[in-house]
Amino acid sequence: MSTTIATIAKEAGVSVPTVSKVLNGRPDVARATRERVEQVLEQHRYRRRNTSRSSGSRLIDLVFHELDSAWAVEIMRGVERAAHENGLNVVLSHLAGAHRPRQAWLDSVIARRPLGVILVLSDLDTSQRRQLETRNIPFVVVDTLGELPAGVPAVGSANWNGGLVATRHLLELGHRRIGVIAGPPDVMCSRQRVDGYRAALDEGGVAFDPDLVRNGRFTAESGYERGLELLDREERPTAIFAGNDLEAMGLLRAARDRGLSVPADLSIVGYDDLQVATWTTPRLTTVRQPLVDMAHTATSMVVQLAAGKDLTMPRIDLATELVVRESTAPIPR
Amino acid sequence: MSTTIATIAKEAGVSVPTVSKVLNGRPDVARATRERVEQVLEQHRYRRRNTSRSSGSRLIDLVFHELDSAWAVEIMRGVERAAHENGLNVVLSHLAGAHRPRQAWLDSVIARRPLGVILVLSDLDTSQRRQLETRNIPFVVVDTLGELPAGVPAVGSANWNGGLVATRHLLELGHRRIGVIAGPPDVMCSRQRVDGYRAALDEGGVAFDPDLVRNGRFTAESGYERGLELLDREERPTAIFAGNDLEAMGLLRAARDRGLSVPADLSIVGYDDLQVATWTTPRLTTVRQPLVDMAHTATSMVVQLAAGKDLTMPRIDLATELVVRESTAPIPR
Repeated sequence: MSTTIATIAKEAGVSVPTVSKVLNGRPDVARATRERVEQVLEQHRYRRRNTSRSSGSRLIDLVFHELDSAWAVEIMRGVERAAHENGLNVVLSHLAGAHRPRQAWLDSVIARRPLGVILVLSDLDTSQRRQLETRNIPFVVVDTLGELPAGVPAVGSANWNGGLVATRHLLELGHRRIGVIAGPPDVMCSRQRVDGYRAALDEGGVAFDPDLVRNGRFTAESGYERGLELLDREERPTAIFAGNDLEAMGLLRAARDRGLSVPADLSIVGYDDLQVATWTTPRLTTVRQPLVDMAHTATSMVVQLAAGKDLTMPRIDLATELVVRESTAPIPR
Repeated sequence: MSTTIATIAKEAGVSVPTVSKVLNGRPDVARATRERVEQVLEQHRYRRRNTSRSSGSRLIDLVFHELDSAWAVEIMRGVERAAHENGLNVVLSHLAGAHRPRQAWLDSVIARRPLGVILVLSDLDTSQRRQLETRNIPFVVVDTLGELPAGVPAVGSANWNGGLVATRHLLELGHRRIGVIAGPPDVMCSRQRVDGYRAALDEGGVAFDPDLVRNGRFTAESGYERGLELLDREERPTAIFAGNDLEAMGLLRAARDRGLSVPADLSIVGYDDLQVATWTTPRLTTVRQPLVDMAHTATSMVVQLAAGKDLTMPRIDLATELVVRESTAPIPR
């Protein structure tokens, strides 16, 4: 027999309407009461049945840690496409750079009872996860920030492999002193790419030099700043692998400011293959991430979970691909 | 005395629940019945009262004709900011390039009863407008596509003035043969910019040559294609005013492909001042549009209308500003 709201209310020492308010994300419940109710809900592994949902408006929540570039637009397109296929509408939020939403955001999600939630480069803490589980609102993470607990479904891309093929390409062109402008140090996808870079160096018999790896912020500005640092080293790298296309764009300017010609004096590999990668001078060699497909897959997973189905594969990494254009060339003899 | 649903039902020859279904955007009403009910609603200027809305989830609908660039991200940021200030969540839709939503979209809006709707570069036909009016769902247009009927609130920017100052700047640098790569011919904001260009030519005593004006599609590709056309003319322009920064980016490549140096051989002015404008080579001289502010203003207007307040100014154009960087220079002697 499944637990009823009455059982929860009795055990938490509150009224049935109070439990109901907590379940509906209503703000008019004292914090202590609410925490007690949440605790009892969790102890009983209570799962709300979503009988009313089918008749309501069908929404899916999409949460970005930041709305800052054409990268976000690619993700939105994938989510929109899958949402449209499933007759869903997308509620967009962003966390203004924070990687974890506040309780106020979670309350609004619980109140509107979406079919599910997609978190992009953002994550929930244990209590937040439980609150969604209790309400039977599934969530899927796109491009995980850190390590996810077991059982949290996620879609990413083959970042390690992306770092590997980008670096192999540069090694094959004869480069040995290869710099990296990574993303922020706490972002998993960036760490995986740097590990792929290290693996390729190992393969090629090139010693890893930590001073050649700098952390940017996935912005053109940080690509410019870290790029100047690398180019101003006594032994400057002959090639640099950038964390994304925006950083590569900043790096292109840094090279120009130092009078270096790309790719004659410096080879550059970007990441993502955003539209801009084909319009820089020279066109960027880059690692293509299937952003639209990643977002589409994540949305389909949410829809499956909301229908009570199990996911055959709760963690999916889509393939990345090296796209060779004009910004890489053999090392000058 | 205001009209009741019973009156509407009687006059349309249907049951009260049927009128209610139509008002709620439910799909299970025959098309003919629905149209009859809509007609009677309109005849009586029926306006639904939104008593239930305050207790429901508070949503605002944001509709793009297309999700295609960092331009859309700027708009989203403005809407998100204003939504956050007002405790609202944003439902995102896009029309896959169409400038007018389908009935299915309108049905879903009516069913979820948002506080209001923001339409970006898209528009509603008369029947669609009436459907929203009947449900008391206000809407505001950002960057109008065509001419709007009186009374439709809209936020734009000073496009005519933007075209004027961009062209004046080129005239002051000594250019006389100034090309234009505009947006699509049916997009109002682009037509206004071209008119500003003509006005500046008039001022400067330069005859208008229609062959110097080409229509692009606000994409880098179209900037490249139209750019080649203009540069391959027998008398090529010494300066080109592009419809947006993406077109300017495509034009930069067209110039390079023709062996022309920017700005020594060709001056280029962009439009929008997206982030990319500062990372091209050379940095783009461009007309800055306050996209975030435009979107923020539109959202605030929707909130006001939803609260039953009148707008002091139903049509607002925010100021544009010429930002001179490196892509414009005096005409060579």
